[in-house]
Amino acid sequence: MEYLTEIKVRGYHADFYGHVNNARYLEFLEEDRWERLESVIDLRKLAARGYIFLVVNININYRKAVAVGETLLVSTILERMGTKSSVLKQEIVFKKSGEIAADALVTFVISDATGKAVPMEGEIKDEIEKLFLK
Amino acid sequence: MEYLTEIKVRGYHADFYGHVNNARYLEFLEEDRWERLESVIDLRKLAARGYIFLVVNININYRKAVAVGETLLVSTILERMGTKSSVLKQEIVFKKSGEIAADALVTFVISDATGKAVPMEGEIKDEIEKLFLK
Amino acid sequence: MEYLTEIKVRGYHADFYGHVNNARYLEFLEEDRWERLESVIDLRKLAARGYIFLVVNININYRKAVAVGETLLVSTILERMGTKSSVLKQEIVFKKSGEIAADALVTFVISDATGKAVPMEGEIKDEIEKLFLK
Amino acid sequence: MEYLTEIKVRGYHADFYGHVNNARYLEFLEEDRWERLESVIDLRKLAARGYIFLVVNININYRKAVAVGETLLVSTILERMGTKSSVLKQEIVFKKSGEIAADALVTFVISDATGKAVPMEGEIKDEIEKLFLK
Repeated sequence: MEYLTEIKVRGYHADFYGHVNNARYLEFLEEDRWERLESVIDLRKLAARGYIFLVVNININYRKAVAVGETLLVSTILERMGTKSSVLKQEIVFKKSGEIAADALVTFVISDATGKAVPMEGEIKDEIEKLFLK
Repeated sequence: MEYLTEIKVRGYHADFYGHVNNARYLEFLEEDRWERLESVIDLRKLAARGYIFLVVNININYRKAVAVGETLLVSTILERMGTKSSVLKQEIVFKKSGEIAADALVTFVISDATGKAVPMEGEIKDEIEKLFLK
Repeated sequence: MEYLTEIKVRGYHADFYGHVNNARYLEFLEEDRWERLESVIDLRKLAARGYIFLVVNININYRKAVAVGETLLVSTILERMGTKSSVLKQEIVFKKSGEIAADALVTFVISDATGKAVPMEGEIKDEIEKLFLK
Repeated sequence: MEYLTEIKVRGYHADFYGHVNNARYLEFLEEDRWERLESVIDLRKLAARGYIFLVVNININYRKAVAVGETLLVSTILERMGTKSSVLKQEIVFKKSGEIAADALVTFVISDATGKAVPMEGEIKDEIEKLFLK
């Protein structure tokens, strides 16, 4: 597993209970998706054709509360690829112990300028498949 | 369906694409959970015994992008109740059209001071069941 | 003083210390600016000419910590009007006691499509002056 | 100038206009304050005595809009030290050009457990003065 994103948990990440708030995890996951996609896929090539990544479902398990002061690592792999949508698997782990703080399946489509999902074939399929190799 | 929370979407809710960002939806959902729980359950009674609501899974579908200027309504119902965990169903709809912008299943446990889930029985069960009636 | 925005402070607004985080106050202020501007100024008329409100300085005093469960009110008045920039005065008060939680001076310019500040004269001056009357 | 914090601006940092939102800057500043304070001051020694850093004023200039994809650096220096409060000067600059995106004066007090500001003298003064040396 490769971790491109490292996050030191600060006071402003936490909520009332002193733990990282549910919504913040989604920012941590998004951070790593961008980092990962940028390092593998030529996003400009897709953008030039009016294509954007559109998340249609997030299924996240909050496994262990994260306190201020902890350091987290985030990873993203391509779990499976379909003809209309694909699924990323993302994990947030404690840097020290390696324990999982949260994991999520993130389903996305490639959408054209009109907001319609385009089939994952041809050049688009080639680009997304690069995510498997990392 | 009863909507306790109304949200006017502002510039600061939206991201780069001009749409409400994935993470913000979770704040909208959390807003309505508090509003709903407070109106039905005696949270102080639970808190006095050291019990807190702990979200362990969120499964959210992003169905339709929400633009700045739109007004949203949020609803929360108790979907099902288990012995260890229960599930809320939450919807975010467009006030004008009634169309669904996003819906989510939110699984929670009642945790004691040590972070351990307590069985949903007795007084705790009675409190949670009140959510069905609303 | 007129309060258009009411905010019930939730767990996700607070940080580690159980108080509303510094950055959140700026969202509360922004919320009321939009609410106020929309109710007084024809923003579409300005937008149609490519003009946007651009905040260039915020000077905020954090006067009293705000805890989860409190209800806040936000107000915005036009403090003074210049030829290049104008200043709004905003207050966040506790609904119950009327005590000030935070107050801020927010300096803004009207910027054209190229990002350049335009002189506050003519039609633009007329629009902004309407803020005095409220 | 020493930059401890580097931020790659993502889609979720930006608002409707495609620029980093006003409130986010305060999170970037807070990030660097923690990083800086932790590297210089023994925060645990202060915390053990019930002392916390409490920001009482932020005066921030937004000088140049920041777009998605830019990389920012943040710096923090001790601007001046008083007997009751002290002032940090913070800058957010574009990594590439060195241009200033925003700068801020952040006034803080040291507060005891009751929320009262304590005089900046003796051991507390010694700790804060260390910030000058960095």
